[in-house]
Amino acid sequence: MNIMKTMRKDIIFQPKGFLFSAVEAAIKKPGRKDLALIFSEIESVISGMFTTNNIKAAPVKLDMKRIKSGKGQAIIINSGNANACTGRQGLMDAMEMAEMTANALGIKTGMVYVCSTGVIGTLLPMERIRPKIKELADNLGKNSINDVATAIMTTDTFPKVVSKRIRIDSKTVTISAICKGAGMICPNMATMLCFIVTDANIDKSALDNALKKAVQRSFNRITIDGDMSTNDTVLIMANGLAGNALIEKNSKEFDRFANALSDITYELGRMIVKDGEGATKLVEIEVKNARNEEDAEKGAFAIANSMLVKTAIYGNDANWGRIMAALGYSGIAIKEEKIDIFLNGLKIVNCGMGMGKDKQANKRLKGKELKIVVDLHLGRYAAKVLTCDLTEDYVKINAEYRT
Amino acid sequence: MNIMKTMRKDIIFQPKGFLFSAVEAAIKKPGRKDLALIFSEIESVISGMFTTNNIKAAPVKLDMKRIKSGKGQAIIINSGNANACTGRQGLMDAMEMAEMTANALGIKTGMVYVCSTGVIGTLLPMERIRPKIKELADNLGKNSINDVATAIMTTDTFPKVVSKRIRIDSKTVTISAICKGAGMICPNMATMLCFIVTDANIDKSALDNALKKAVQRSFNRITIDGDMSTNDTVLIMANGLAGNALIEKNSKEFDRFANALSDITYELGRMIVKDGEGATKLVEIEVKNARNEEDAEKGAFAIANSMLVKTAIYGNDANWGRIMAALGYSGIAIKEEKIDIFLNGLKIVNCGMGMGKDKQANKRLKGKELKIVVDLHLGRYAAKVLTCDLTEDYVKINAEYRT
Repeated sequence: MNIMKTMRKDIIFQPKGFLFSAVEAAIKKPGRKDLALIFSEIESVISGMFTTNNIKAAPVKLDMKRIKSGKGQAIIINSGNANACTGRQGLMDAMEMAEMTANALGIKTGMVYVCSTGVIGTLLPMERIRPKIKELADNLGKNSINDVATAIMTTDTFPKVVSKRIRIDSKTVTISAICKGAGMICPNMATMLCFIVTDANIDKSALDNALKKAVQRSFNRITIDGDMSTNDTVLIMANGLAGNALIEKNSKEFDRFANALSDITYELGRMIVKDGEGATKLVEIEVKNARNEEDAEKGAFAIANSMLVKTAIYGNDANWGRIMAALGYSGIAIKEEKIDIFLNGLKIVNCGMGMGKDKQANKRLKGKELKIVVDLHLGRYAAKVLTCDLTEDYVKINAEYRT
Repeated sequence: MNIMKTMRKDIIFQPKGFLFSAVEAAIKKPGRKDLALIFSEIESVISGMFTTNNIKAAPVKLDMKRIKSGKGQAIIINSGNANACTGRQGLMDAMEMAEMTANALGIKTGMVYVCSTGVIGTLLPMERIRPKIKELADNLGKNSINDVATAIMTTDTFPKVVSKRIRIDSKTVTISAICKGAGMICPNMATMLCFIVTDANIDKSALDNALKKAVQRSFNRITIDGDMSTNDTVLIMANGLAGNALIEKNSKEFDRFANALSDITYELGRMIVKDGEGATKLVEIEVKNARNEEDAEKGAFAIANSMLVKTAIYGNDANWGRIMAALGYSGIAIKEEKIDIFLNGLKIVNCGMGMGKDKQANKRLKGKELKIVVDLHLGRYAAKVLTCDLTEDYVKINAEYRT
């Protein structure tokens, strides 16, 4: 267990009017909390972003419909089972979870959102979930947001929680967020669940906008294995209990809120990559001076997803040829003779050719964090992507049934 | 060494008028032959296909210019160094290799093609290559095509040679081919060199056409790690010494020749995947009844390149949820509720849902070869892709410098 080593020691602020609860339902196996509830004492404004995978889990389908109302009050989450590829029964199970939760809380069913994460293709053990929902509602307030963060973990090795306080017209506004990551992480928020709660008083379209921006530069710029999941969901609930004047788009207050939200999701994104399955290194890849932002992003992702680059980094091998090859097949505009590459600030490629500094560079690879900068010298656009190395442990974790 | 276990025992036919040679030049390290020559006694018609990576090795750039003449007589190949990302000096080295070879053989420089494979970003050790070129020419005829196949190996564990004889207007026409593969194998022939020699008398545009077809359904439909190299080259020389009447397009003779060539490249493609770095299983993935061939191919590649699918296969884990997820993010047209999936003939997914046959399916995964069929029930197009599993050994091989 490296939970204690890597868990953040920051104080976690709790926004007003939110309560949390987590119980054990033995969904995959007994011995851990795997069913959790987030509840706002009053109806909240809600925004969400969902997987772009064409195969969507049942709860994702449900939430995508529900979120059109713009309102929400509770989120029930289970780990251990994704409720994906489960057909009509899966959808009925998700709806039943929402309905039972609404009844236990005395709120409307449409106010309850459902999220699941875990194995695909197995029906939820509803017989074990049903009897626990009352307990979940009764426990509200007895648990903290950290307990929910722990309950939603799958192959994560530590819970991920970040919070921030900002002042908006002399009121204290709190934003707190949790997420889970680990495997199947790739652009577009793959196998990731993220729940953000805030007591900010904010207009629905401003909230949508702030969330979209935050996700674009954080969760959509991380990759572990290039696989995108069926269940990715980011939900943010804002209940307005901070008492600030309504935040609307195109205002200083909006910018302050949106920046704080972006900082939070960026930090959560870093935590997810740090905790990538089997990962030993956190790697930031920046492609700069590209012809346009799309090229910069595509180039950075090609490098970040290259199995050969990822294994070289694991091997402390400054094999920049693999970086060049990935850039080459990414399909973006490049001029080989203009490319410079830097490893943690050390220039190792100049005008497309090695500088004979491989031994020095190999040493720089031995740290836990690595920054690769590729300068294309073609334009003025840049993009950064976070990834991790590829290790034997990644294979072991994902080939767990090997006999 | 598992060379003896896996090497094909077939008789290798040699086409008329071709001579082979291989010597030791200690390009990367001493103790093995790493410089080879293929020579036709008379000028040949030549066709080629090259990497689509925007970063191309120096010899690739040279050959792409040279092949416009449509003629060739010799190919010099080195392993241990890719002569890629080596700037102007790299191009001069490739040209010098061609020129020295032409001089030693007494032919025109423009008739010599150069291929390199190995590490990117290091200049060729020309001081060790130069003195060996004369020896290479002198040895012609003392070595066989198998010796060339062995000399071009990098991380390959066995040489790859296939040959075939066909009758064309009562003449015997022989086609023999060798290739190397191993890492950086992905669509578009990544880090692969393939040399085909034939004594067929064939028209240049017919040869181009037959090669393109053969490569499209073989080397362009295999993937090991999704990485595409800077050096991929397929060259075919036809010297006409079989004495058959000229083969032209749109004839029965052309079809016979093209089919034989396709069989050869398909067989070589299988060998490359079987010999994928660290691979323990050969996996054929077929997506059928897609809306169009592009969708079928894209879907099959998404599954074949998924690290989660590849590790599950390694782990003998019939985790069809990972197959569904890969299909979902491939971006092709699908209807979840129409998808059927078969593992070695056993139906495990029916109408998008599991059939509870996971234990039976896990057993079927224990063999060395696996066939996954995905039926989309949307149209009538299909595509097959060959790949292998992802193992700890792949990571070890590619993180070799780890200390």
